[in-house]
Amino acid sequence: MIQSRDPESITADLTQQGVESAYALIKSKVKETPVLTSESISTIATGSDNVPTKLFFKCENFQKGGAFKIRGATHALEKLRPEELENGVITHSSGNHAQALAIAAAAKGVKAYIVMPSNSAPPKVEATQSYGGIITFSGPTASEREYVAETIRKKTNARLIPPYDHPHIILGQGTVFLELMLQTDVEYGCKLDAVIVPVGGGGLLAGCALAAHGTGVRVFAAEPALADDCFRGMETGIREPSVTSSTIADGLRTPVGVLNFAIIHKYVEKVFTVSEEEILAAMRLVWERMKIVIEPSAAVPLAVALSERWKREGVKGNIGIVFSGGNVDLDKISDLIKRS
Amino acid sequence: MIQSRDPESITADLTQQGVESAYALIKSKVKETPVLTSESISTIATGSDNVPTKLFFKCENFQKGGAFKIRGATHALEKLRPEELENGVITHSSGNHAQALAIAAAAKGVKAYIVMPSNSAPPKVEATQSYGGIITFSGPTASEREYVAETIRKKTNARLIPPYDHPHIILGQGTVFLELMLQTDVEYGCKLDAVIVPVGGGGLLAGCALAAHGTGVRVFAAEPALADDCFRGMETGIREPSVTSSTIADGLRTPVGVLNFAIIHKYVEKVFTVSEEEILAAMRLVWERMKIVIEPSAAVPLAVALSERWKREGVKGNIGIVFSGGNVDLDKISDLIKRS
Repeated sequence: MIQSRDPESITADLTQQGVESAYALIKSKVKETPVLTSESISTIATGSDNVPTKLFFKCENFQKGGAFKIRGATHALEKLRPEELENGVITHSSGNHAQALAIAAAAKGVKAYIVMPSNSAPPKVEATQSYGGIITFSGPTASEREYVAETIRKKTNARLIPPYDHPHIILGQGTVFLELMLQTDVEYGCKLDAVIVPVGGGGLLAGCALAAHGTGVRVFAAEPALADDCFRGMETGIREPSVTSSTIADGLRTPVGVLNFAIIHKYVEKVFTVSEEEILAAMRLVWERMKIVIEPSAAVPLAVALSERWKREGVKGNIGIVFSGGNVDLDKISDLIKRS
Repeated sequence: MIQSRDPESITADLTQQGVESAYALIKSKVKETPVLTSESISTIATGSDNVPTKLFFKCENFQKGGAFKIRGATHALEKLRPEELENGVITHSSGNHAQALAIAAAAKGVKAYIVMPSNSAPPKVEATQSYGGIITFSGPTASEREYVAETIRKKTNARLIPPYDHPHIILGQGTVFLELMLQTDVEYGCKLDAVIVPVGGGGLLAGCALAAHGTGVRVFAAEPALADDCFRGMETGIREPSVTSSTIADGLRTPVGVLNFAIIHKYVEKVFTVSEEEILAAMRLVWERMKIVIEPSAAVPLAVALSERWKREGVKGNIGIVFSGGNVDLDKISDLIKRS
């Protein structure tokens, strides 16, 4: 049993049952996102041995706020007592967690203080504002962001809700896998053989690994080669505490969290890395064939499923692919989506 | 009663009932595409008078072949006798009709000869090929395409299936409206007040107008200002036989067909035109907020719904918006989606 190392000594049931309990709490507050399939992409994913591979895409790009993050944020708030929420919540994030916390807090009538680096993409700032987030800008580095956040936290006594290294966040994100497995069964009459989940901070991956434990579904991780701290950590058994990366998969630039790594190391079978070109090709394929918008981070698991390394691994059958989000900055991405 | 002016003197029931009959024939052969909503886009569409507008998006971008065209093509083939199909079918198109006919023909085990201009976008050529279409390239002008098509038709005795100016095509495309109305009712418990449909050759618009006749749903058309032959024809009552346009809405560059115009003139309430900037802004909004890929032509009705001209018209309530397709050439579109 993995113990929570959270400084606030939160006790949480870090098991499959814990994810089920989280789901009961958040189910009515988040979207049940669709599970889609694509005959043509499944055909491409089938190897030269012609043993059929069928991909089931869990579309968290259609989630509230455009990413899975609302699940963890909602769960974290649900687990706090009203008096713990009365001064609001705070986080620092330039990405999907900021929007998610703003939405989850608004749903509970609670203030959300969001520290964003001053170089954040305008659409993300606008979105966070439109959800009612109270934004403070900071310098771009992690330490600058943390300093500003800590200053506001002291002043307001708001509760810090971290983006991934937290048991309640992990359990909330794990509900993605529960839904995926259930929908694949009920809607398609298929049993999953494996799932491929992207890993950045590891909230989603650790949660899905807990949720899959005991189900017989094999759990694999997908990481950009340019931000391969989880891959290297799994090789050595020691978590890499930092990663400096400019991968286009901007949601995966963070190092895996402490609690996250402990769970991932125990329950995840293997991490696969992919190149920037493979990520972009997978993203383009989804936009073109499935007509849905996914962000680069969300394309990483499909990039794995289409890679030769994966095909050599010989995992066949029904493969779940988690599309983690769809928040793209069209201004920045427009140059990237051109074929090289 | 509008008479078919088709040279082959096809008799067709150009009425609401005719569309219902077409639907019975093609229902099992095409996709029932989803009807989606977007709270944030509906809010933007609501005017300063705050009388609520709710938009219902019929997502034919998720249709087989990525556009509504498969409906008309399938219907046209269903209406032919086996002996009329034995030499295959032929069309000339650089766009969605080519792919649709290739798919519909393959489903019936019939050869599809497709004449495409040699400057067609590679993804469209690849897609048409992947569906089994037998491609012949021609020069880029309409007369060059027609000449090559006629040469092949004479040689093969294949049956010509035109893209829009044909009663069976019109009736097939009209099934888009039937589904939209039914789904809005069953899935959302709402009755449509109006629908906005894009117009190029007018197959989709004429079909939807027939399908809506007698239902009480008002039918409006959306056209790029740069290709406003339908708008001008409605003003004068005389069809404009040609249009030269470089609108980004490449599916709407054709003049309205003869039969199509007769139906549109009788049943469509009004045509609204929008600028290239309005089309792009609407397309970006859908990609960003709804996380789905629509092509520029498909964004034209939403561009109308967001325009001041439309808001001044005072059409309120539940508005159907037809997203006609999602086939974009990411290489070409990437420069366009950057904010100006």
